This record gives sequence, C-alpha cells and structure tokens, in this order.
Amino acid sequence: MAVTRPPALVALRFDGAALYALDQTALPFNEVELELASAADVAAAIRRLSIRGAPLIGVAAAYGVAAELTRDPSQESLEAACELLRDARPTAVNLSYAVDRVRQAVLRADPAEVAAAAVAEAQAIDAEEAAASDAMARHGAELLASARRVMTHCNTGALAAPGRGTALAVIAELAQRGSLQGVVATESRPLLQGARLTVYELTKLGIDHELVVDGAAAGLIAGGEIDAVIVGCDRVAANGDVANKVGTYGLALAAQATGIPFVVAGPTTTIDATCASAAEIQIEQRDADEVRCAAGAALTVAGTRCRNPAFDLTPAGLISALVTERGIAAPVDGASIRALLAR
Amino acid sequence: MAVTRPPALVALRFDGAALYALDQTALPFNEVELELASAADVAAAIRRLSIRGAPLIGVAAAYGVAAELTRDPSQESLEAACELLRDARPTAVNLSYAVDRVRQAVLRADPAEVAAAAVAEAQAIDAEEAAASDAMARHGAELLASARRVMTHCNTGALAAPGRGTALAVIAELAQRGSLQGVVATESRPLLQGARLTVYELTKLGIDHELVVDGAAAGLIAGGEIDAVIVGCDRVAANGDVANKVGTYGLALAAQATGIPFVVAGPTTTIDATCASAAEIQIEQRDADEVRCAAGAALTVAGTRCRNPAFDLTPAGLISALVTERGIAAPVDGASIRALLAR
Repeated sequence: MAVTRPPALVALRFDGAALYALDQTALPFNEVELELASAADVAAAIRRLSIRGAPLIGVAAAYGVAAELTRDPSQESLEAACELLRDARPTAVNLSYAVDRVRQAVLRADPAEVAAAAVAEAQAIDAEEAAASDAMARHGAELLASARRVMTHCNTGALAAPGRGTALAVIAELAQRGSLQGVVATESRPLLQGARLTVYELTKLGIDHELVVDGAAAGLIAGGEIDAVIVGCDRVAANGDVANKVGTYGLALAAQATGIPFVVAGPTTTIDATCASAAEIQIEQRDADEVRCAAGAALTVAGTRCRNPAFDLTPAGLISALVTERGIAAPVDGASIRALLAR
Repeated sequence: MAVTRPPALVALRFDGAALYALDQTALPFNEVELELASAADVAAAIRRLSIRGAPLIGVAAAYGVAAELTRDPSQESLEAACELLRDARPTAVNLSYAVDRVRQAVLRADPAEVAAAAVAEAQAIDAEEAAASDAMARHGAELLASARRVMTHCNTGALAAPGRGTALAVIAELAQRGSLQGVVATESRPLLQGARLTVYELTKLGIDHELVVDGAAAGLIAGGEIDAVIVGCDRVAANGDVANKVGTYGLALAAQATGIPFVVAGPTTTIDATCASAAEIQIEQRDADEVRCAAGAALTVAGTRCRNPAFDLTPAGLISALVTERGIAAPVDGASIRALLAR
C-alpha cells in the first residue's frame, strides 16, 4: 500500500509490525511511502531500489526480519526471511551483516519473545548507524576542512543511510561549519540517484549545488573547479579496495590525475574483512532497460543489448582516505583498515 | 519543412538550391529530413544539433553559404552568411575552415557565377571529407588490426562526417576485415549521441554492439573487456591536445590506467594549427535543460542549476595515436602533427 507522506525526510520508519519506506524510485517528483509488512515486501523494495544505499538496505533488511517474525515467529520463518533478505542484492555487505545480527539475537532470545528481540536488534542497528553517520560527518569535515568545492557521486545522504548518511553527511557538516562554497553532484546514470536524490536532499538542506552529467565530471576536476571528491561505498575489501556506484572508479582516476583528494565515507559495517580484495567482490548486473530508458523515456533503438553493472571497483591506491565512524584510514591499505577495525 | 525520408543513411544532400539534412535530434525513433534553404536555416539546425559532428557541420555550413548565395548572390549576403555559420558553434574548427574556403572561392569567382562557385566549393569539401573518411578507415584499421573489442564514445559515423565518418569508419572497416568481435558504445549524455545515433548506425551496419552508461566505461576497461578505445575529435590543437565530446578525457584516463590504446580519429581539417594547446580552446557551454531532461523526460528537481560543457579536453600525452586521412601521428605531439600536415 502506497500513501502520500508528509514532507520531512524520513527514509525508513518501523511501527512495531511494518516498515514504512519513502519510495526512492518516485523521488523527486512524488513523496510516496510504502508499507512493507513482510520480509518478501522488504526484499522486493530493496531489489527494485525503492530502498537503496548500503547502510539503509542493511537496516531495512533487519526490520524486514523483525516484521516477518511479528507475523510468524517460527524458526522456519526466521531462516526463510534471513535468506531472502541476505540475497536481495549481492554487492553490499551490510545486508548480510544486519540480517545475521538480527538472526543471532533471535536465536539467543526466549522463544516467546523472538519478535521483540528482532525488533530490538533492528532498532539497535538503526541507532548505531545513525550515530555512525554523525561521527563520519565530524571526522570527514575535519579531514576536508579546507575544501570549498566538493564533488559527489550517486546518493549518500539521509536516503542512503540512517541519520544524515555517509558522504553527504560530511558535505552537510562542511556546509554547517560554513566552509563549503558549493557541491557538484553527478547525475549517476542509469538510475539517476544523483539527479533525483542528491539534488532533492541538497535542495532540502539548502546547500548550493550544480548538477552535471557523469561524463562531465573528469573535465571539471581537470579544470581546477573541484577541491575534493567524496563518495560512499557499497563494500570495502580488507585491503581497502572499494565497490561503489558505477562511475566511482573514473572519478578516482580523475582526482588522482589532478592531485585532489578522493575520499570514501562509510560505516565500518560496510567493510568486509572476509573479502581480501576487489577481485572477490561480486558486481551486480542489472536489467538492460535501466540503460535503454531514463525516467520512463526510451533512449535508444528497441532491444539494444546493454551492459549494466551497478557498481565498479576502485583500487585502494586511488583512495586518499576512508572515513568511518571510528576515524580515518589514510593511506588506505590492509594495515590501516585493520587498525581502524581494532579501535 | 520536415519530410519523412527513405531508409538509406544520407546525413546531408544538396539539390543545387537547398540542403536536406536528416534531423539527428529525431533519431533513432523518427527518420525525418529537414529542408534548409538559407544560411539561417542551416545555422539554426547546427545550433540545435539537428546536424552535428565536426566534419559534417563544416560541410553543412559550406552548403549553407551556397544555399544563401543562390537566393541572394550579393557581397553583403556572402559576408552575413559566413559570419552566421562560422559562429553557429564555437568549438569545432571545421566550421570556420569550410566557410572560409567557400568565401575565398566566391571572392575569386566571376561576379555572375558566385552561387555556382559556392556550390562547387561546398561539393569539393564534401567529396574531400568523404575521401578522408575512407583513408582514415584504412589507416585506423591497420593500426588497430589486433583489437577485437573496441569502445567508442559519442557518434562518429556517417551521421557525423561525410563518407563513413571518423572513428566509426575505422570500426566499420575493422568489422569488414573480419577482425572485430564487438563494439561497446557509451550513451554519451546529455544528448545521447551514443545511445541514439551510434547504436542506430551500428544496427544498420550489422555490427555486434552493446550500450553502456558513460559511468560504466572506466570499469569495463579496467576489467579487461576492451582492447582499444577510439573516438573522434572536435578540434585538435597544434600540440596534439584534443577537444571532443564531454566524457572523452575520462575514457583516456581509464585507457592509460589499464594500458590499452586510446586512439583519436579525425580529418586534418579538424586540426587547428593556430591553436597552440587545449588551454586556447573555447568549450561550448550548453543549456541546462539538456542535463535536466533526457528524451523529453524530466530527471531532476525543476530549476536545478546545471553545468553543461559540450566538450572536454584530453592532453596529447594520453592519446596513443591520431589517425587522419594523411596517416597516423604517434606519439601525438607538436612534431608529429607538423609532420602530418607537411605530407
């Protein structure tokens, strides 16, 4: 069931039985809230990107397990919900992290209280991620205190993670501290999370911004118009390699060529210590129609074959710093990541 | 006046008094021919990209002067037409090259024959560019004889230049020689010349191809899926720096990072020997609505400020080879360009 929602930007809310999510596929044109009462509802919303952003899909999946257990608190129900939600999308590690935490909490709980235990664990993850967002904002703003003109890619704000988000939380903090002159947002084809969601968030935040097509980003960087690039991440390998929204790697190359910082922000829940390097990260391939169309309009010859990787891989060596809630890893490598995780 | 045209791909034809152009803004969905009977008609068609591609707008402008002189063969008419067409777009040097050649031919002509002289000169430029296309195809195909999977950007085929085009002529020649496995075409936002025009041409040519969003290109290159990148050019400076469709520079960085050839193809008429380096090339900034929309569909919050450079600048050092009708400059630098122009 979809209902029009009030203007405040609340990406997710849980009422004890169902998860309500702002449908991100409808933004910025329609603010519609989806009622998701089962694990299947939540998994479908994650797959079609009504809910997206690595930290946010983790929290949504946690609530999805909780919602399912309020309907059917059986062991079978738990395992089916966990499997469904863990596999909703393949690249972000946050899904399996959050689902596994809720599952463990349920397995530890009194059999009469499994739903309550799941809800409490999902809420704990949500609160931790929101606190992580604030901490990332502070660490990132200190790191980029001298950056006046910042470029960002995809959407990494309150629509992508609890609290204020990841990279966009850093940008919002820089704006609050008064040092930011403006943001250049890339549109982030194919699904235009930059044009649709980041512009929507920056408009709500009152932060001065300009939108560019993805192909224009490297030239603007080379032209000296950008002081730093900051992006989020969908998975960070143990060696610091990063999987993030397709197009990220090209921005990292351009930042390196021009000698400006290329900064990645994400909670430590996005680090996959079991993944040695980018070579082990599975890149989700999405439907060709996302490339063939934009906002419902056909762009090319019908039936054109497309490649549509949702993510690309940026080697750690191109990343100036990884900003997490526990602090900053710089240079980004296996040692600095291990030190971060040991804090 | 727009008329539906037969299926053969003829970007421009001149009937002695008016220029007929396939309206490239309507492709691939509608094949509509525009009748352009004056310099103002041709300039407007070039400005709104109904006719585009550096060599093609040069030839169209030459026919535009000729069309104007068939209506009014006065000196004032000549000068006004030349000024209007030279300034239709700022980045490609082909416009002023072609217009100045027609103007000189007219000034040399018998006053009673200025229209005929203009038509003859425009036809000569058209024929020379078509011959250049064939020569580029041969030189480029020899250079890239071992490339199986080629990436290209924007549109550089028969819709962009007389004959078979520039970079796409090389690709067509590779396909004809049987060595090509497939082409990856970037969509080339904002105006989607890759998705709309290159896919249309490759489909007509029967060449196996896949379409990707611009942001996916660097990751595919890094993933080892591309053997060479070949693009066209809108202006080549005396030192070999290249202005081309926005997004080109990022592809050059990605090709360099992975160690595959990054090749630029264009006729020597695209070389501006009076321009020392990219720093002197004016980059056309186009309307924000091109970024805010795609295929007529709104993509972002209404009124969003955009930056919309039509081109970017690729330094000569990132270019493996410049393929022209006179041969190949490699490495690309002032000396190799001078040697090419002296042939």
